[in-house]
Amino acid sequence: MKKFTSVSDVENLQEIIKKALQIKADPLTETGKGKGKTIGLVFLNSSLRTRLSSQIAAQNLGLNVLTLNAAQEAWNLEFADGAVMNGDTVEHIKDAIEVLNQYCDIIAVRCFAGMKSKEDDVNESILSQFEKHAKVPVISLESATRHPLQSLADCITITENWKKDHKPKVVLTWAPHIKPIAHAVGNSFAEWMQEMDVELVIANPEGYDLDKKFTKDVKVIHDQDEALKDADFIYVKNWSSFDDYAAMPEVKGDWMLTNEKLAGTNDAKVMHCLPVRRNVELSDEVMDGHNSIIYQQAKNRIFSAQAVFSGILDELKA
Amino acid sequence: MKKFTSVSDVENLQEIIKKALQIKADPLTETGKGKGKTIGLVFLNSSLRTRLSSQIAAQNLGLNVLTLNAAQEAWNLEFADGAVMNGDTVEHIKDAIEVLNQYCDIIAVRCFAGMKSKEDDVNESILSQFEKHAKVPVISLESATRHPLQSLADCITITENWKKDHKPKVVLTWAPHIKPIAHAVGNSFAEWMQEMDVELVIANPEGYDLDKKFTKDVKVIHDQDEALKDADFIYVKNWSSFDDYAAMPEVKGDWMLTNEKLAGTNDAKVMHCLPVRRNVELSDEVMDGHNSIIYQQAKNRIFSAQAVFSGILDELKA
Amino acid sequence: MKKFTSVSDVENLQEIIKKALQIKADPLTETGKGKGKTIGLVFLNSSLRTRLSSQIAAQNLGLNVLTLNAAQEAWNLEFADGAVMNGDTVEHIKDAIEVLNQYCDIIAVRCFAGMKSKEDDVNESILSQFEKHAKVPVISLESATRHPLQSLADCITITENWKKDHKPKVVLTWAPHIKPIAHAVGNSFAEWMQEMDVELVIANPEGYDLDKKFTKDVKVIHDQDEALKDADFIYVKNWSSFDDYAAMPEVKGDWMLTNEKLAGTNDAKVMHCLPVRRNVELSDEVMDGHNSIIYQQAKNRIFSAQAVFSGILDELKA
Repeated sequence: MKKFTSVSDVENLQEIIKKALQIKADPLTETGKGKGKTIGLVFLNSSLRTRLSSQIAAQNLGLNVLTLNAAQEAWNLEFADGAVMNGDTVEHIKDAIEVLNQYCDIIAVRCFAGMKSKEDDVNESILSQFEKHAKVPVISLESATRHPLQSLADCITITENWKKDHKPKVVLTWAPHIKPIAHAVGNSFAEWMQEMDVELVIANPEGYDLDKKFTKDVKVIHDQDEALKDADFIYVKNWSSFDDYAAMPEVKGDWMLTNEKLAGTNDAKVMHCLPVRRNVELSDEVMDGHNSIIYQQAKNRIFSAQAVFSGILDELKA
Repeated sequence: MKKFTSVSDVENLQEIIKKALQIKADPLTETGKGKGKTIGLVFLNSSLRTRLSSQIAAQNLGLNVLTLNAAQEAWNLEFADGAVMNGDTVEHIKDAIEVLNQYCDIIAVRCFAGMKSKEDDVNESILSQFEKHAKVPVISLESATRHPLQSLADCITITENWKKDHKPKVVLTWAPHIKPIAHAVGNSFAEWMQEMDVELVIANPEGYDLDKKFTKDVKVIHDQDEALKDADFIYVKNWSSFDDYAAMPEVKGDWMLTNEKLAGTNDAKVMHCLPVRRNVELSDEVMDGHNSIIYQQAKNRIFSAQAVFSGILDELKA
Repeated sequence: MKKFTSVSDVENLQEIIKKALQIKADPLTETGKGKGKTIGLVFLNSSLRTRLSSQIAAQNLGLNVLTLNAAQEAWNLEFADGAVMNGDTVEHIKDAIEVLNQYCDIIAVRCFAGMKSKEDDVNESILSQFEKHAKVPVISLESATRHPLQSLADCITITENWKKDHKPKVVLTWAPHIKPIAHAVGNSFAEWMQEMDVELVIANPEGYDLDKKFTKDVKVIHDQDEALKDADFIYVKNWSSFDDYAAMPEVKGDWMLTNEKLAGTNDAKVMHCLPVRRNVELSDEVMDGHNSIIYQQAKNRIFSAQAVFSGILDELKA
């Protein structure tokens, strides 16, 4: 694997899921593989699961880890090419990346959507700079439009929880929130599920359709109850409007996932990337009930990261 | 040891002090004991000694360490059960703990008293969530009402400094401060000293008596000079009112510890958990004088933590 | 090496440059040298290169690393001797240092000039406390008046880039900025270059002469074009006025380094310590052009740090 910023960087999805499950069975199986190599984990945004699971994965492989909270620990970054830096920004992102090139064998970066300029976010204004200037493999720890390490963990989790011989029905359902949230998790889940042997349906209110670039021909239903019918897996996630970028058009009905709504499903497993706003996105009873596989998803973040880091190390040694 | 949040988690205090002193003599004696295990150090508050000594102790045992500055690096936490999370909080503490369960073999947490609600603090509103939801051993790095790793270090330090064959007189004395400070160190020291072979006396102004739950039958004297008489050890610490919670009732006289006040003691050793406000809690001359064993206390934080981590690892392997 | 806070701590500059280049050729050559030893990296200010390169260097030597973002993670520090600490400061720097003495075998600290009191900065009000109170070797990660790990990296970089048999002409040139910047990098470069076999010239506008303590008899020219003529190396750096401390007297002409200005040089290599304000201090074309050896300088920060840490470890074992 030369880099990992979207599903298209994965040559064989079933193979990497299998690899991740082998790692889960024995996390220390490749303990010396990263010896003498350094991964830089650069955080431009908050992180709990990604931060800790990446550190554990790196440690399991024997990689040296450099963690940088860029804004708080280093310098205020400039992102515009050609900028005359006579304002608040102290270091250009491309210089920071060139320095990371000198210090790291792998660069992993978290850079959320700014939710201010649709163009900047759609064009991955920050991740694209890493892809352009990095001379070592780049791993996305969530970018403006995708969260691939999460999506791989989601694929692992569905694989673990589906032993039947027919295709599961997987519903990605929009959930309420109190402020404009990025599309990365929704986009990414849609993209990865299209590579899995599942029947994917997306449920969201009118005005909240995701970017067609990611959802392609996936069926989008604007009635949540209809969409959830006979679901085997439900992925709960909020996002703001894509068309009217970052807006929150009025929503009819209550989209919070409750046990009542689960009743119409095929005893569906409930998933969420976390953090989750309880009793807003889903109810306490769902979160704490037997249908939730949400903490299992969180655990699988370790093995998702470790399978990816391992694949990148194969490339470095090749 | 199944957990470590108060003295009652210690089966045999003299044994663990002895163990800590053995570790001090040879810190790398159990260097492979933590191999393949991960301790999560979660800081909801500032820390210097606890942060560094815990990291050193973990490293000496070969434990992997994950350090998380929760507020700055992760998400704003919700603590109320059943909360409708439509405000500023992004992740419920119980979900964060469940995720830590997936990532860590031991969870250590620092969660100070909020000093706003007596009920919340007395009930350990945060630590209790860890004790309830953690599926791995929990270690307190100071909570609302106790600071047990500090108290164990205090026991070690007194043991090192007392070679005579009679009981030492130990005085826990209140000291001035400029704002309302929590009771954790005072409570905890009182609690642990009652398990030691010492004569404990507490000196504080009227209105500043600690919670009887911790002080029990210990003699409380409201006259500092009287209390300090013939003292062998003096533990200096400020706390606010417990009865009129977090208030700072007017204090008669000057309670700052000075050399003049040491004159009436039995050349007492002076202790403080640090950080200390010089020339407010105690004078420069005391801090820098030959009676102070304060830096030795700070050093013993390493061996206190290491003895506890080691005891927890015994349990994990059992 | 007993400590490392200025060039005067280096016994033989050519030897340490040679050592650093050997390390660069094989960074893991002394991988067990720091085993069982702990270095504390204390940051009172922002850092990217220093933070990461120090961590890598320490890791390459097998040193344990404790990193402390003092202001954010620990306590607000008091620096005044004898202070009555009844204000915002919670811990005296000398107590923090005494605690670090207990926890670390080497203390490295970053403490920028405050740029408010000339006297405080000239007297190294913070670093001097470390030099006074530390009982273990102290390493400067940049202080009020010097940045020696940077300067050593600069010496390494010039050595790598100069294979001719005559003395290179090295020009330290002032560059524009938007706010008052400290003198540490300029002072330090001047000081170290006087120990190298080069012809050093300093170019800066009138009113911007550096402290004579560092520049001594080095030629200072107030006309940038004249200074740059036939230069082999150009070191670009801003600093504020030293005489009228931290002021920014009006500057005639444009001092930003451009390709046009490079035309009059001996195809000079361009250096900068980073972070750099593009199109203010130097143009994009210079930064991204073939004359720049700026990223190579950044990389050499690893080997500069590692050579110094290694030298300090020799002392610890002696």
